Amino acid sequence: MTSPQSLAVGLVGAGRMGSFHAETLARRLPGVRLAAIADPAPGAARELASRLDCPVAYTEIGDLLADPEIEAVVIVTPARTHAGLVEAAARAGKAVFCEKPMAVTLDEADRAIAAAREAGVALQVGFNRRFDAGFRAAHEKITAGAVGTPQLLRSLTRDPKLHDPSRIPPWTIFLETLIHDFDALRYLNPGSEPVEVFSMADALVRPDFKDRGLLDTAVVTIRFDNGAIATAEANFEAVYGYDVRGEVKGSEGMLTLGDLRRTHVTAYGPAGAAAECVTYDQDLFHPAYVAELAAFTDSVRSGRTPAVTGEDARAALGMALAAIGSVVTGGAVRVGDVRQSPGYREPAVAR
Amino acid sequence: MTSPQSLAVGLVGAGRMGSFHAETLARRLPGVRLAAIADPAPGAARELASRLDCPVAYTEIGDLLADPEIEAVVIVTPARTHAGLVEAAARAGKAVFCEKPMAVTLDEADRAIAAAREAGVALQVGFNRRFDAGFRAAHEKITAGAVGTPQLLRSLTRDPKLHDPSRIPPWTIFLETLIHDFDALRYLNPGSEPVEVFSMADALVRPDFKDRGLLDTAVVTIRFDNGAIATAEANFEAVYGYDVRGEVKGSEGMLTLGDLRRTHVTAYGPAGAAAECVTYDQDLFHPAYVAELAAFTDSVRSGRTPAVTGEDARAALGMALAAIGSVVTGGAVRVGDVRQSPGYREPAVAR
Amino acid sequence: MTSPQSLAVGLVGAGRMGSFHAETLARRLPGVRLAAIADPAPGAARELASRLDCPVAYTEIGDLLADPEIEAVVIVTPARTHAGLVEAAARAGKAVFCEKPMAVTLDEADRAIAAAREAGVALQVGFNRRFDAGFRAAHEKITAGAVGTPQLLRSLTRDPKLHDPSRIPPWTIFLETLIHDFDALRYLNPGSEPVEVFSMADALVRPDFKDRGLLDTAVVTIRFDNGAIATAEANFEAVYGYDVRGEVKGSEGMLTLGDLRRTHVTAYGPAGAAAECVTYDQDLFHPAYVAELAAFTDSVRSGRTPAVTGEDARAALGMALAAIGSVVTGGAVRVGDVRQSPGYREPAVAR
Amino acid sequence: MTSPQSLAVGLVGAGRMGSFHAETLARRLPGVRLAAIADPAPGAARELASRLDCPVAYTEIGDLLADPEIEAVVIVTPARTHAGLVEAAARAGKAVFCEKPMAVTLDEADRAIAAAREAGVALQVGFNRRFDAGFRAAHEKITAGAVGTPQLLRSLTRDPKLHDPSRIPPWTIFLETLIHDFDALRYLNPGSEPVEVFSMADALVRPDFKDRGLLDTAVVTIRFDNGAIATAEANFEAVYGYDVRGEVKGSEGMLTLGDLRRTHVTAYGPAGAAAECVTYDQDLFHPAYVAELAAFTDSVRSGRTPAVTGEDARAALGMALAAIGSVVTGGAVRVGDVRQSPGYREPAVAR
Repeated sequence: MTSPQSLAVGLVGAGRMGSFHAETLARRLPGVRLAAIADPAPGAARELASRLDCPVAYTEIGDLLADPEIEAVVIVTPARTHAGLVEAAARAGKAVFCEKPMAVTLDEADRAIAAAREAGVALQVGFNRRFDAGFRAAHEKITAGAVGTPQLLRSLTRDPKLHDPSRIPPWTIFLETLIHDFDALRYLNPGSEPVEVFSMADALVRPDFKDRGLLDTAVVTIRFDNGAIATAEANFEAVYGYDVRGEVKGSEGMLTLGDLRRTHVTAYGPAGAAAECVTYDQDLFHPAYVAELAAFTDSVRSGRTPAVTGEDARAALGMALAAIGSVVTGGAVRVGDVRQSPGYREPAVAR
Repeated sequence: MTSPQSLAVGLVGAGRMGSFHAETLARRLPGVRLAAIADPAPGAARELASRLDCPVAYTEIGDLLADPEIEAVVIVTPARTHAGLVEAAARAGKAVFCEKPMAVTLDEADRAIAAAREAGVALQVGFNRRFDAGFRAAHEKITAGAVGTPQLLRSLTRDPKLHDPSRIPPWTIFLETLIHDFDALRYLNPGSEPVEVFSMADALVRPDFKDRGLLDTAVVTIRFDNGAIATAEANFEAVYGYDVRGEVKGSEGMLTLGDLRRTHVTAYGPAGAAAECVTYDQDLFHPAYVAELAAFTDSVRSGRTPAVTGEDARAALGMALAAIGSVVTGGAVRVGDVRQSPGYREPAVAR
Repeated sequence: MTSPQSLAVGLVGAGRMGSFHAETLARRLPGVRLAAIADPAPGAARELASRLDCPVAYTEIGDLLADPEIEAVVIVTPARTHAGLVEAAARAGKAVFCEKPMAVTLDEADRAIAAAREAGVALQVGFNRRFDAGFRAAHEKITAGAVGTPQLLRSLTRDPKLHDPSRIPPWTIFLETLIHDFDALRYLNPGSEPVEVFSMADALVRPDFKDRGLLDTAVVTIRFDNGAIATAEANFEAVYGYDVRGEVKGSEGMLTLGDLRRTHVTAYGPAGAAAECVTYDQDLFHPAYVAELAAFTDSVRSGRTPAVTGEDARAALGMALAAIGSVVTGGAVRVGDVRQSPGYREPAVAR
Repeated sequence: MTSPQSLAVGLVGAGRMGSFHAETLARRLPGVRLAAIADPAPGAARELASRLDCPVAYTEIGDLLADPEIEAVVIVTPARTHAGLVEAAARAGKAVFCEKPMAVTLDEADRAIAAAREAGVALQVGFNRRFDAGFRAAHEKITAGAVGTPQLLRSLTRDPKLHDPSRIPPWTIFLETLIHDFDALRYLNPGSEPVEVFSMADALVRPDFKDRGLLDTAVVTIRFDNGAIATAEANFEAVYGYDVRGEVKGSEGMLTLGDLRRTHVTAYGPAGAAAECVTYDQDLFHPAYVAELAAFTDSVRSGRTPAVTGEDARAALGMALAAIGSVVTGGAVRVGDVRQSPGYREPAVAR
């Protein structure tokens, strides 16, 4: 039903992930309609709009932001453009959902948060793990005391396939991949904040690209202010599948999280038992991707604060920048010092 | 989008399961709209229609079947009414999705199938396991030879809670519960048909209702024409959750199917490791319920034969009637003899 | 230490399983010594005795039974000889451990039990599942009420490889394989006894041997006197491994039993997740095989009744004979009627 | 059998772990006899010897080392005494099995290794994970290329209960607990050596003991010379059980290791699915403890190099000292620099 009161959402960015979110907006959220798509690539917005019966396509993002019918925007562009678009959308009075990372410097993050606050619009960030049924159940159990005080945490993300290392900007593993784990660790250690970070990273999948700045494998150790010690780990090529897992050990117990299996079928043959793994993030997190946009559009309509805020995005960014600083300096980096660290400036250069 | 070419579906039966299917029709299937709801209970259709922005509500099912706008109907009424409604809907030229069982006697089943064939309308039956990702993957692997020739099969269904034994008609465990397992066994033993059936059944959950004809626990052994021996098992109160599992052992391997866990979280505490179980069928099979209606509406639009036909429904019914006959006679019953068996007449009486 | 007070055990039967038990007696049981081995096959006893530093080897079993030094015997000969040897050993005043089945007719079983009782010697039967840590834990939990009243049970045994079908006597699947499951079901349904049995069986692994009486696949349904309905299932060639599992569903919960994995390693590769399975019964039940002989020798020394008695062996045999009777008659057979059933006489003929 | 050619082993240290090894030597290893026990605690050796029918008990360890009948010794004394006893035993011409850690400084380790080499005696160290069926299978698969080139590794050890923090010497978590993980990581990354180490550690289980030097929680990141990045993690109180797990992710796949379950029973009730966990290291590693002593005594008799050498012990110690150095300095420490690091001297002080 296209009822008059349905929420008009504009999508910015019609790439792989943008198309996925567009389909959710067009077809899976009652009371929401995909009202416009903008993408500077010639034909991209038009083609996607046509496929999804979306009435308007722009090649100028500014035109979508200026469209008075649009009430909320979903930003799915390259990472370095996120913060600027959040700011612009907020100033145009639109509620904003922004894919992670919301920003790549703390200054940008601060400006984006301030813009949304000043405009009085909702701002939510795409940390999908928070909308996964398992991560959410774990968060709730931990909040309810199921593991007592967290002491040891782990979060990992491994992608199934490294496609083109030449197209990966430096620090991507921290700013775009591990940022999920940094947020997940804050989510699984509720009420605590990171204090100190140490990283080891390398190009192990494609060592031949290491001298061009590629880092495809990283392990980050984080000390939180409640004493808990966490490990975040990422790798760009796990041939067995899309691997996202977590673990929280506390004074009263442990929770483990994550399942690599594609279905509940186990096949037994002469070689033993076998199960197929999930190899596609949009399979693994499909319900979570739908749930995060549902939560966003609900918060726009209800006026309630979104579940994952700009401040959450800034906190995860602080961890990423400290992790980068640790790679640059070879030592541990305090999260509070990151603005002064060499690592802090480095991503800015990388743009 | 309410485009003119969207498929107009009418829902017959606004109870628990009908409401669930209605929501899928109204909100989750692109290109489909819920155009009318009919339920003889005063207010039931109107209330559900109002909640889902469905424009029309009937208290006479015949009025819905006579509504020229309706192209397809979804029948979710009590089991004994199914076959007659399939017949009536088919004669009215509507494509038909009917919840299981499609019929409770073979004569009824034959008339329903004939009516759909004569009218040239699609007829699909609600065997949801065929649309579960795991059962489907198992079927495909078995068809591809993954287990060789099936020798031993198992399918079981256990409901979490027996609510009101006084409201359960005799033979329900065979006609409404095990009918899922009978179909699943045919699906997991592709190309083979059942030959002989033996049942043991009892009222073990509520022995106090046994003299009123309640059977809440049953084990059925089935011999197929490829030699495979299958077990179907049902029980009406598994306090730990909604339990649907399968197993196929063949000459070259085995597949196991089913997972009781609600999420991928495991909690470890002083008592050991623990995982929550699924306790609600609409959680366990939610994607399957959506997929079966998507498959039905797709087949209506494409003109292709539905994935689960009236003939499939009749075959599963034959197994159920043979199983009932085995309870009545205390011996094994050949599926081909079921029309002559005492068990065959019994369900008719039970209406 | 060969202390004077160590228990002198004689082994009867030096085949595959006999050699395995011999090694346990010689090396793994403190306070026990393997004092003699008897096997009619030329050289068999001598060779095994030499390998295990056992001082005496006989080719006449009677000589071992007459050896005054021997206090207990372990019988690991072909099944049809068991009952006679139990009788002879008991009359010679030896405590007796007999591999399953203790007998192949109820008359034989009765005589063996009577002989042990009259001689006042311990008699234990080799139902190894009772000494497996998992089956034992399940039994204890069930006895303590963990599942409430049992309603549905399952026990299955699948062997990894059918070696030479021409050497398998008729009814072996019931008398030698399923007899484990029959005993396991009694163990997992404590205090209850079987009432009625129905079987379906076939030669599915080697259909070419069916006309010579081979049955390599069987499913047996059993009704117990507490109402519980059980399934016992066996198959002679599971290419994926040695498969022994169980399940008990009761009014208050369910227990599942059995694990096919050889180690705790899971390997993930492009084809998914994989684990190796156990393919050898002596791997799967190694600790159980040691534990059952330890329990036997302990009971000999302590004078306490063995954990698995001749009466247990007789009860499992009754179930096996009823299952055979069900194959012969094609109908259900009451366990109490088995002496009069055609099935009862059949195994005697098969000798 | 106490045959003249059986290997005479002397046990040094009759505490909890010593008693456990004594029982293995006395009862579970064919061709091995426990010939003497030494422990300075009054009565300890005598009591244990009496229980196990061991003929000789000493209160002076030197007397056992001087006993000409003893061919091999098993050292199970407090850690700081290990290296000196290895040296003394080797000089007395005895083959030596020493519990981990073999030494607490590199100088000690070098002297112990040299003494064994000069005396031409076997020297094996008690890294039990190498004898666990799972760790061994993983090592073999990795060596055979199952995961390709290792990129990310994890090993963790968590004890179920912290008994008396006041009795735990400083650096215990590195020298006695994580030393298992350091060796396991070398075992699971065959042919590679550690290069650089970073640690975060704290007293989280008992913060009140932190100012007395207790560290009960530690996470160590290690870079290996093949580029692989490993995490070792330990904690002194996992209320859910004895938790030892591992993981190796490489260019071609991943292996996971470890299982917390006590048996293969899963119990399902209203709260979901539950399994009991292993809570006792001697349960978890019982077969491994037997296998490591069997391997040692076999190597003594065969003259072959033991499976885990003094050099392996020294390498793991180097990692532990680097990890300690990292705690002391707050930065990463190169393993090659550890002799010069502040951390190197610290354990010496701790004695």
